Amino acid sequence: MLLEKLRQEVYRANMELPEKNLVVYTWGNVSGIDREKGLIVIKPSGVEYEDLTPENLVIVDMNNKIVEGDLNPSSDTKTHVELYKTFPAIGGIVHTHSPHAVGWAQAGRDIPCYGTTHADYFYGSVPCTRNLTAQEVDEDYELNTGKVIAETFRERNLDPVAVPGVICHSHGPFSWGKDPAQAVYHAVVLEEVAKMAMYTITVNPQAAPAPQYIQDKHYLRKHGPNAYYGQGK
Amino acid sequence: MLLEKLRQEVYRANMELPEKNLVVYTWGNVSGIDREKGLIVIKPSGVEYEDLTPENLVIVDMNNKIVEGDLNPSSDTKTHVELYKTFPAIGGIVHTHSPHAVGWAQAGRDIPCYGTTHADYFYGSVPCTRNLTAQEVDEDYELNTGKVIAETFRERNLDPVAVPGVICHSHGPFSWGKDPAQAVYHAVVLEEVAKMAMYTITVNPQAAPAPQYIQDKHYLRKHGPNAYYGQGK
Amino acid sequence: MLLEKLRQEVYRANMELPEKNLVVYTWGNVSGIDREKGLIVIKPSGVEYEDLTPENLVIVDMNNKIVEGDLNPSSDTKTHVELYKTFPAIGGIVHTHSPHAVGWAQAGRDIPCYGTTHADYFYGSVPCTRNLTAQEVDEDYELNTGKVIAETFRERNLDPVAVPGVICHSHGPFSWGKDPAQAVYHAVVLEEVAKMAMYTITVNPQAAPAPQYIQDKHYLRKHGPNAYYGQGK
Amino acid sequence: MLLEKLRQEVYRANMELPEKNLVVYTWGNVSGIDREKGLIVIKPSGVEYEDLTPENLVIVDMNNKIVEGDLNPSSDTKTHVELYKTFPAIGGIVHTHSPHAVGWAQAGRDIPCYGTTHADYFYGSVPCTRNLTAQEVDEDYELNTGKVIAETFRERNLDPVAVPGVICHSHGPFSWGKDPAQAVYHAVVLEEVAKMAMYTITVNPQAAPAPQYIQDKHYLRKHGPNAYYGQGK
Repeated sequence: MLLEKLRQEVYRANMELPEKNLVVYTWGNVSGIDREKGLIVIKPSGVEYEDLTPENLVIVDMNNKIVEGDLNPSSDTKTHVELYKTFPAIGGIVHTHSPHAVGWAQAGRDIPCYGTTHADYFYGSVPCTRNLTAQEVDEDYELNTGKVIAETFRERNLDPVAVPGVICHSHGPFSWGKDPAQAVYHAVVLEEVAKMAMYTITVNPQAAPAPQYIQDKHYLRKHGPNAYYGQGK
Repeated sequence: MLLEKLRQEVYRANMELPEKNLVVYTWGNVSGIDREKGLIVIKPSGVEYEDLTPENLVIVDMNNKIVEGDLNPSSDTKTHVELYKTFPAIGGIVHTHSPHAVGWAQAGRDIPCYGTTHADYFYGSVPCTRNLTAQEVDEDYELNTGKVIAETFRERNLDPVAVPGVICHSHGPFSWGKDPAQAVYHAVVLEEVAKMAMYTITVNPQAAPAPQYIQDKHYLRKHGPNAYYGQGK
Repeated sequence: MLLEKLRQEVYRANMELPEKNLVVYTWGNVSGIDREKGLIVIKPSGVEYEDLTPENLVIVDMNNKIVEGDLNPSSDTKTHVELYKTFPAIGGIVHTHSPHAVGWAQAGRDIPCYGTTHADYFYGSVPCTRNLTAQEVDEDYELNTGKVIAETFRERNLDPVAVPGVICHSHGPFSWGKDPAQAVYHAVVLEEVAKMAMYTITVNPQAAPAPQYIQDKHYLRKHGPNAYYGQGK
Repeated sequence: MLLEKLRQEVYRANMELPEKNLVVYTWGNVSGIDREKGLIVIKPSGVEYEDLTPENLVIVDMNNKIVEGDLNPSSDTKTHVELYKTFPAIGGIVHTHSPHAVGWAQAGRDIPCYGTTHADYFYGSVPCTRNLTAQEVDEDYELNTGKVIAETFRERNLDPVAVPGVICHSHGPFSWGKDPAQAVYHAVVLEEVAKMAMYTITVNPQAAPAPQYIQDKHYLRKHGPNAYYGQGK
């Protein structure tokens, strides 16, 4: 079988979704990419987590063609592939319907950076995409979901490494990372900061985002050459 | 004993209600129907889930008469029977008091389709019935609960297969499916989308429903002849 | 030891509080009364649930005097005793700080009967008492907490059997029942309907209570001579 | 190894954070101080709770210098040290990102004392600090976080024993106690009262704090020479 190690990583990352209460039933999927080979390992579509194994994951190439696997890949596969093409720095992608992130996505609002929990992982707001147009949905829904995420990052000049997630209007969150495990980590953070932001506006509907210099400080004490959080390299 | 297999299905479906945190104490019930025989298997009234067995479920006919069983059937039996009569396509029914769905029911508002989580399973809003009149309550409360659900679907021209649930004003949710297990699945979805919709209006009280073409897309990629979600047949 | 059976009941009921997530740490207590002997079994003050045993419960008489036990009884003992004196029909009392009921208590608002979940157990609103006066607090805080609950029921002409609980302004809920187990059951229901009522006003701040005839119907199908819920006697 | 007993206490207190659902991942830390030796035991930075042991905790002195340990201490160490210097009565400190407390912190609002749950442990509002200035962040972020907490208590004339916690604007809660275990206890209480206060303003945005004499009564029946809650000394 191809990509034994990546299969294990993607399998473990998928299994974390129900463990971290990010999904009910089959409402989520994780993929990982081998950049050298140009191959993506992804969850099969509609398979219960209890039936998932490293072996029944599906491998597709950058043209969404199945390279190995007997099952259909996730119905969101084209979105994943488009994101891997657009964001060369990422190695894993997660999609969930975690409820607080979905709340913001359905409300069509960016999640403001109200504090340091958010700033530690997302540099600035978590952006909310526009809705797809009827034509985009009709033409190729999943591909265009990836394209509208790419458009959002391009138009707002966002770095997908500094902003490792997005919420799609009327839909829900995607997050990513250097590998599948980090993509799941960011999915957990995204749900947590979406919840905290909801609590914040409940207490104070006019709450202001954290001052920019605090956002800078927290992001940069964890990321980049001058980071000093954790045990270093 | 009659209907051994259906008894097992209805038993399993009932036991899922507390497992999925949809009920506290005895606040819920599941039934299933054998359409050929015209017989319904339903939870006995007020029995704790830990005391439930396939054997102490009650079998009633389409006239609400007990055919097999020593216990009283659920006090909601007439509602179930009326729904089976009105909606010939359904094979299982669930009633719960799951809290977010009850919140919308008590507020007397349809649950709008704000996004794809909802659209994947419910085509359009989850309707909220009108309150029963004093006369309807006095005459036959449980029967008329079934009749007002039927009226809601008839007047709004809704297909109970495409909209597999309802919330009853001042009361709570009923859901259904092709069999008892799918009815429970829809009860879980209904509670989850009720929660997400509550989060949505918390973030944005003027949130708009998802565009109709997105609702169409998501419902139809999972249902009908052109569905492509899952492993197909 | 006195009252072996009641000790067991009160012990079991106390242990249910953390099991049902109604209390953190020691923030709750249950008592039960032997009406013939005029003796009350109650949780000792500030003892962790894991250290509780039937043997270290405290027995007091109707004058709050310790009859058996080495520990101090709950600091709320005088409130319990006053309620037993005022409401002769009750056999068990529970006090918790369950968070949704506390939310309504701190807001100083009755919990309206928005639907059938509430109506099945509480006939009409769950009343919120007035705040105690400075003099009442100074004179005898715990005794006067009992007296203000009694005043609330007397002035509003409420039957404590039909309305088996109350929320005390700036404080939290008390509930009761025919025995300690039923008092806990009502504490669970009170928290659940407080939560549902909060969800209801989140969806619709102008939500109306359930029509009176629906409140009557649901309460009376479970209670009184014409009840038909459950397996009857 | 130095401070074996305090290491055990700090270890146990740290492990309680995930057990009490106060942290996800590594988002929290506990320290304890040996006042005689002037040494502080603190969690290492960014270490998962499952990898924590009494032995890999770090010991620093009152100048933030590592005295024992191979790992970097928590990135919040300077905040802890500053608090130990400013508040001589405290023996343990906790920092978390518990979500309801963060909600109030991000909203920039004190948590009012709406009722007795709060009054039992915090005498008056839980104060919210001002935001740090850009210069304070730039100069020494963690040290100045401690200083702004100290400023808040000084300017408002608050006693850190009677108000054993704070929320830092755009950040989150710190709490403390006579030892690490009590500091965690206060972190649990702070999250719980933050949640209840949020529920309170959801029900009644104009809710008033509990009358001062009730706040006095509840705090003083648990604390000080006339306390009568619990089993005495």
